[in-house]
Amino acid sequence: MTTFNAHDIAKAAKTAFQEAQLISSSERVVALYEIRKSLEAHKAEIIRANEEDLREADVEVKAGKMSATLLKRLDLNRGDKWDSMLQGILDVAALPDPTGSVSYASALDDDLELYRVACPIGVLLVIFEARPEVVVNIASLAIKSGNAAILKGGKESNRTTILLAKAISAGLLKTAIPESYIQAIQTRAEVSSLLELDQYIDLVIPRGSNSLVKNIQNNTRIPVMGHADGLCSVFVDEHADVTKAVRVVLDSKIDYPAACNASETLILHESVVYTIWPTVAEALLQANVKLLCDSVSLDALKQLSPKPPNFENLVSPSTPSSYDTEHLDLILSVIVLPSIQSAIQFINSHSSHHTDSIVTESDVAASAFCRGVDSAGTYVNASTRFADGFRYGFGTEVGISTGRIHARGPVGLDGLVTYKYMMQSKAPSGHIVGEFGIGKKQYKHKPLTVATVPFLE
Amino acid sequence: MTTFNAHDIAKAAKTAFQEAQLISSSERVVALYEIRKSLEAHKAEIIRANEEDLREADVEVKAGKMSATLLKRLDLNRGDKWDSMLQGILDVAALPDPTGSVSYASALDDDLELYRVACPIGVLLVIFEARPEVVVNIASLAIKSGNAAILKGGKESNRTTILLAKAISAGLLKTAIPESYIQAIQTRAEVSSLLELDQYIDLVIPRGSNSLVKNIQNNTRIPVMGHADGLCSVFVDEHADVTKAVRVVLDSKIDYPAACNASETLILHESVVYTIWPTVAEALLQANVKLLCDSVSLDALKQLSPKPPNFENLVSPSTPSSYDTEHLDLILSVIVLPSIQSAIQFINSHSSHHTDSIVTESDVAASAFCRGVDSAGTYVNASTRFADGFRYGFGTEVGISTGRIHARGPVGLDGLVTYKYMMQSKAPSGHIVGEFGIGKKQYKHKPLTVATVPFLE
Repeated sequence: MTTFNAHDIAKAAKTAFQEAQLISSSERVVALYEIRKSLEAHKAEIIRANEEDLREADVEVKAGKMSATLLKRLDLNRGDKWDSMLQGILDVAALPDPTGSVSYASALDDDLELYRVACPIGVLLVIFEARPEVVVNIASLAIKSGNAAILKGGKESNRTTILLAKAISAGLLKTAIPESYIQAIQTRAEVSSLLELDQYIDLVIPRGSNSLVKNIQNNTRIPVMGHADGLCSVFVDEHADVTKAVRVVLDSKIDYPAACNASETLILHESVVYTIWPTVAEALLQANVKLLCDSVSLDALKQLSPKPPNFENLVSPSTPSSYDTEHLDLILSVIVLPSIQSAIQFINSHSSHHTDSIVTESDVAASAFCRGVDSAGTYVNASTRFADGFRYGFGTEVGISTGRIHARGPVGLDGLVTYKYMMQSKAPSGHIVGEFGIGKKQYKHKPLTVATVPFLE
Repeated sequence: MTTFNAHDIAKAAKTAFQEAQLISSSERVVALYEIRKSLEAHKAEIIRANEEDLREADVEVKAGKMSATLLKRLDLNRGDKWDSMLQGILDVAALPDPTGSVSYASALDDDLELYRVACPIGVLLVIFEARPEVVVNIASLAIKSGNAAILKGGKESNRTTILLAKAISAGLLKTAIPESYIQAIQTRAEVSSLLELDQYIDLVIPRGSNSLVKNIQNNTRIPVMGHADGLCSVFVDEHADVTKAVRVVLDSKIDYPAACNASETLILHESVVYTIWPTVAEALLQANVKLLCDSVSLDALKQLSPKPPNFENLVSPSTPSSYDTEHLDLILSVIVLPSIQSAIQFINSHSSHHTDSIVTESDVAASAFCRGVDSAGTYVNASTRFADGFRYGFGTEVGISTGRIHARGPVGLDGLVTYKYMMQSKAPSGHIVGEFGIGKKQYKHKPLTVATVPFLE
């Protein structure tokens, strides 16, 4: 029964995607406006469903089975959340069209032109946490980029999700885009069935814990764009400036400790242990950051007189597992290493390949660090917290990918497109391969400068 | 035991990759020249090992357990195969460096610059057929693009493969690149163990049958870039020119029927069944192509008087499975459909999303076909046989991807790279996120025009 449903849903999504390929991209913007209107028209019933989700969640919280934080996230009527959800649709509508642009064009011969054109991927399966506004956000990104999407939110928000998805489909009904372009599913069993349907689904985007991502990767042939955890670090080089060190280490840790781009580990070059480290440590302790120190960095602090503020209650020895832990809190693991080479090796072994920063005045060290550290972001004298689609200038963010394939780092709308090659012969009798070769015609490969494919309507 | 070996091999590959990140890309070109020299120096023993592989294969052929074609492919001393294998190394060495170029650059603030830089992916696991020269070809591509590689060829060429890999490592020993940068493995059990090691291996590239690709996709978390089968088609539109139709259909089928970009299916708009189809059919039959026809296309041929040449022995009715079969031979499935819309739907359901071509004089039809057909290549009045990395102007080809993620269609060196973001603050006290926000600094996102990252050595 479930399998049957999943198959129907996936097939409907693929059909909707294929039909929509002939619709102009301006209609996708119209659709976003219609969806916004439809959500506004159905606001009362969506909020009522949300209140039901909240009531049920409240019982769970009182029984100690759910955190109060999760409850807050469920609330769609809290503060300006509803309005900013609707504004988000307009923001996405206003972004440049990620499809249709030509990234490579070449005349293989007179009157034979090849174009590599950005186009949607197909059907996305997006699995995310219990934050109902994400349904609207992901639907907007999918529509703007020309992809159909099947959405699965956290089960705690199921009632809200169903009505949001219905309002989205009602909006699509007023456009040329098929209403099954965006569909929502409710159960994990449906997800499992969908993961088998690689003939219909082209990309799975799980947003959530590392274990969720790994579990999905283990159970599907479909490519997975993982948005996993972040274990970022800052390395204070022997050539570091103390002011920069304090500012970058502090901001990376305390600006928003629960974010994946917050720093979890501080690596000190051994030559700064008695020079820069005490100042950095004092600033961290004043900001109430708990320090898990290796013996060398701990000894250096112990020798200080007077001891830094909060030393007794905030400084303790690290354990080997400290350096593989994403604290997501005001906690920082500290280690001293003898060289930049060992720092690079340490980061490559322990970090999650998200974002790592070096504090240094040396161009040689900056270059070695940025080349040697195998992470999506490698920074010089800048906080790891800059790793974010909005800060990078993408206008929005699908997530941050710690994988290397297709998209890496903060992923904007560009991460939701692929390309196809279009070729047109304008020769009087078309073009065939048999005319080329030794003693015959040769390929010309003359670069063409075009922004879009001339023969497309 | 096998698991232990696999782990050591994979870890050595990752370490070699990471160490090589600090080596300049010009050294990779030096390495290719050294490998060529080393292969030349070890030619006698490699050829002896190849002769042993051939002797053993010959026994299998005589026992009817192996095809003579496979035997021929094993022979490294046949014709100019050895010399063109060595020339291939120089060709790859001469290609532009696919790494180091900047595809996006922006000043997020005064003195805060962000760069998206092409860089290698990491460790590749490449599994391919029993053609020993592929070892050298793949090794060249991996080294040129800065990736470490673990290679597994067909077991029939094991002796040759081992010595080729040894000669490659001997060449690397004369350079700064670690010798474990390129490693060869021999058994399927080793492949199975390696597929579990996603902490070391970043991309699997299986070259071979659809079942090989699917089997690997089912058994690993590591991303797979599949080079699967090709089920290409040509659609003769109602607005087709007869000369173009004959030339494009014929070339797509007969230029090299065993290639993945050869056409397997001919789709006819119903309005050309009694106009263009008889001429196309006659040309196909004259070229000895077997036609598997649906009832409408078959009836049209039956009504011809006189019958086309070879009609009796080459024309037969199709079955439903004809349209899902990659013939790889002088066989063509033929179907008549009532519209371009139904042709697009048919292709999207039956083709392998490789390359499909329309023959038409109509720009409207060309545009609809190229947008609506969800394949890596969509052509107008050109043979499907153009789908090839060399013909596209990439200089070489890793393979042809029918997937949509990361690389699609013919994959050149560009398909073996990813990108990372580098960021540098040149501000007197570095850059922190806490300085930006409402009532504080705003992001400037000023586009920068640079080809490479200025601060890299």
